[in-house]
Amino acid sequence: MEKTKVGIIGLGTVGTGVAQLLLDHGDRTARHAGRVLWLEKAVVRDLKKHRDCDLPQGILTDNVDEVINDPEIQVVAQLIGGIEPARTIMLRLLKAGKDVVTANKALLAEHGAEIFDAARELGRSVAFEASVAGGIPIIANIGQCLSANQVSSLHGILNGTSNFILSRMQEGDDYAAAVAEAQRLGYAEADPTMDVDGTDAAQKLSILAHLAFGARAHWKDIPCTGIDTLDVTDVEYAGEMGYKIKLLAVAELVDGGLELHVSPTLLKAGSPMAEVSGPFNAVRVDADAVGRLMFYGPGAGQMPTASAVVADMIDTAVGRTKLTFQTLELWSNRPARVSAADYANARGRFYLRVDVEDHPGVLAQITKALGDQEISISSVLQHEATTPGDDIPLVVMTHATTEGAAAKACEAIASLKCVSGAPVRMWVRD
Amino acid sequence: MEKTKVGIIGLGTVGTGVAQLLLDHGDRTARHAGRVLWLEKAVVRDLKKHRDCDLPQGILTDNVDEVINDPEIQVVAQLIGGIEPARTIMLRLLKAGKDVVTANKALLAEHGAEIFDAARELGRSVAFEASVAGGIPIIANIGQCLSANQVSSLHGILNGTSNFILSRMQEGDDYAAAVAEAQRLGYAEADPTMDVDGTDAAQKLSILAHLAFGARAHWKDIPCTGIDTLDVTDVEYAGEMGYKIKLLAVAELVDGGLELHVSPTLLKAGSPMAEVSGPFNAVRVDADAVGRLMFYGPGAGQMPTASAVVADMIDTAVGRTKLTFQTLELWSNRPARVSAADYANARGRFYLRVDVEDHPGVLAQITKALGDQEISISSVLQHEATTPGDDIPLVVMTHATTEGAAAKACEAIASLKCVSGAPVRMWVRD
Ligand SMILES: NC(=O)c1ccc[n+]([C@@H]2O[C@H](COP(=O)([O-])OP(=O)(O)OC[C@H]3O[C@@H](n4cnc5c(N)ncnc54)[C@H](OP(=O)(O)O)[C@@H]3O)[C@@H](O)[C@H]2O)c1
Ligand SMILES: NC(=O)c1ccc[n+]([C@@H]2O[C@H](COP(=O)([O-])OP(=O)(O)OC[C@H]3O[C@@H](n4cnc5c(N)ncnc54)[C@H](OP(=O)(O)O)[C@@H]3O)[C@@H](O)[C@H]2O)c1
Repeated sequence: MEKTKVGIIGLGTVGTGVAQLLLDHGDRTARHAGRVLWLEKAVVRDLKKHRDCDLPQGILTDNVDEVINDPEIQVVAQLIGGIEPARTIMLRLLKAGKDVVTANKALLAEHGAEIFDAARELGRSVAFEASVAGGIPIIANIGQCLSANQVSSLHGILNGTSNFILSRMQEGDDYAAAVAEAQRLGYAEADPTMDVDGTDAAQKLSILAHLAFGARAHWKDIPCTGIDTLDVTDVEYAGEMGYKIKLLAVAELVDGGLELHVSPTLLKAGSPMAEVSGPFNAVRVDADAVGRLMFYGPGAGQMPTASAVVADMIDTAVGRTKLTFQTLELWSNRPARVSAADYANARGRFYLRVDVEDHPGVLAQITKALGDQEISISSVLQHEATTPGDDIPLVVMTHATTEGAAAKACEAIASLKCVSGAPVRMWVRD
Repeated sequence: MEKTKVGIIGLGTVGTGVAQLLLDHGDRTARHAGRVLWLEKAVVRDLKKHRDCDLPQGILTDNVDEVINDPEIQVVAQLIGGIEPARTIMLRLLKAGKDVVTANKALLAEHGAEIFDAARELGRSVAFEASVAGGIPIIANIGQCLSANQVSSLHGILNGTSNFILSRMQEGDDYAAAVAEAQRLGYAEADPTMDVDGTDAAQKLSILAHLAFGARAHWKDIPCTGIDTLDVTDVEYAGEMGYKIKLLAVAELVDGGLELHVSPTLLKAGSPMAEVSGPFNAVRVDADAVGRLMFYGPGAGQMPTASAVVADMIDTAVGRTKLTFQTLELWSNRPARVSAADYANARGRFYLRVDVEDHPGVLAQITKALGDQEISISSVLQHEATTPGDDIPLVVMTHATTEGAAAKACEAIASLKCVSGAPVRMWVRD
């Protein structure tokens, strides 16, 4: 049987899983690839660190040049996180004639153009299934399986950490306790900022928007709110009204172009996306020929992510990746096929929570601020104060309006004397 | 831009959708394929029939040889249903050097070995995404995206017609009314036998079992019960106990080999598979690296099916199908990697409905028949008779037992004097 020599750069969580699959299940990869994927080198920073895999002699090295300069290594999984040295190593691998597989969404979202241009110029390929939605093969499904379709919208729960935290809050934890539990179980990093502030989801959404719509949106230009502004009372109020809160990444073709945003969103309980709980991800795709598809699975974790990386390595070794890569529109030098729609024009319903003083006339002032923006109210929820004189939360669900109008109304509400703090605002979807 | 000339055999529901996508959205297919898919010929039986697509002059023919003998046509979508002449045309196309795409599961389930052997010998490929689960790209996901995994189980709602009928029964229709409604809306054929008796699901399951497990099961050897034995009372009783009934196709690796069956099954309400309603399909895949994935979407219909066919045509024109086809284990001449487990040993819980005479001692007789097979009872449901003296339905939920024991107990129960008719028996899953 033919042999394709492969390398791994980075033996952390994901890299170790990839090494395990290649070493312990070589028969399986050989059967599916029609060739042996032979692990030749694995590069780490610290040779002394314990690794959870039995590496044969001579594989481990702390010198990346041993991979870059080995002309026999054809496919390399680049599994260092962050921007540098990942970016430089990526470019050096491509220049050295290697096809690359990566799970690093931050790098692609930041330097995708440079990396994809280099690969195209050099006749190489970059596979990145693991960079979005972990074990769910969403890149292959959109990039290959839906090629007869025009996608009209993508709704994704793309950050498993946030989703886990929201699920815990659903069960009564406050935000801090939920974060601590996520850290204890390994779902959140010591510093979970990029997960909870929406950055990670926005980076993944930008990759999907490139792929599905031929958009050229940089993730920093995607309006993005995280779950770090939420309070457990919001989860409770949402529940009382029959909704669950999810951090939703949305890309939707509308008249004005492509609407993109990441926002905590109230989804009707019982709807498929609302019921995705724990560290899972889901992507709902609407497309003109196929209609609605939904994909559900683990959005991160060692073996789910390794599953996606090794599938990419097989596709690359077999030659499929190269054929797909040639027509992918990701960061291509062609002009964008769609421009970003003005977020202020995005239409939807909103949930607003305002902490107000408990005296007569307050509701009238809030209603007026909304009315000034021509926002009509669908329902109001306010419980009796437990301690008289305390501020109490007032929850308003609006009818359909625009994001811009809702934002202006919230500004006006925030400046009212009877209101303390900024209103919490979320999208509401059925 | 390069051109790949393609042909379509059969312009019925699916063929017309494929022609529409190729003719009306040529820009899209060209973008995704990096080449033009040029529709050269479309073959039908009756040239005079109205077609819902604007075919340019010279494309329509009733002579299949015009495709077979045109050396420039490289990819052909074979979209005639049933066995003959589909089988003969398929083989002739392959011999003439064409790569074939098909949606015909009945043909593959019956003659897959012959067709795949011919394609392999001739160095050609057969793509069949549309043959299972319509618009859900389940073949690509299992055959390509999960190639780093050992799949351990597949649970599928694979027949949209049955699922639509069950959903209607859930809403109160009796079986006949639900079938009539399915026919009125085009979800069921004039003769829906193959859909409601489980044949269609068993054929699809055999294709998935080949693909995911390297099994060699013929669909006729898969134990199969349809929904045509159910009564609306079963749907009501299931609902009362917190379950929904689905026609579930199951493939599961167990100690004795691969367990395969198609059966109406009670699924806990609220679980993702239980909530798949209407003409939709869903497949749940458990695999060792990735864990659990779920795919949801339209299981049939003109454009969803055409979406899958055209994606296959693009993959074939680009050269990806050939690379995948070389390593697919479907009907390969290698020995089966797994043998069929004895269905009698399949373990699970069961729902039994028995119509019994309304007098004392009856429950004792039923309990004894179950006890003789060492089946213990988890719960019993029996309502008061509306007309005294009438037979009344007695519903028993068992604890875990084997399919063989449950079958024997039901035989014994059927022969009791106090029981009329055969018991209705279904699997129960959480
Ligand atoms: N973890 C997940 O569930 C998941 C899911 C999807 C995508 N991803 C992405 O996958 C990538 C890897 O994630 P991870 O969780 O596996 O990270 P990790 O556990 O932090 O591992 C990083 C690895 O890179 C190595 N490394 C760092 N700098 C290096 C250098 N200069 N030279 C050689 N090796 C170097 C480290 O070596 P030492 O071990 O010697 O320190 C370590 O083995 C990231 O881009 C991440 O976003 C992760
Ligand atoms: N419909 C769905 O939603 C769906 C979903 C998944 C898979 N499939 C599968 O797709 C295949 C096609 O289904 P369909 O619903 O499109 O069937 P259909 O509507 O009955 O169309 C069959 C077509 O084949 C043509 N045909 C039959 N015999 C022929 C012959 N001897 N020579 C030339 N043409 C011939 C017919 O020509 P005339 O029009 O001239 O009679 C008709 O255009 C079947 O295998 C089916 O199982 C269908």
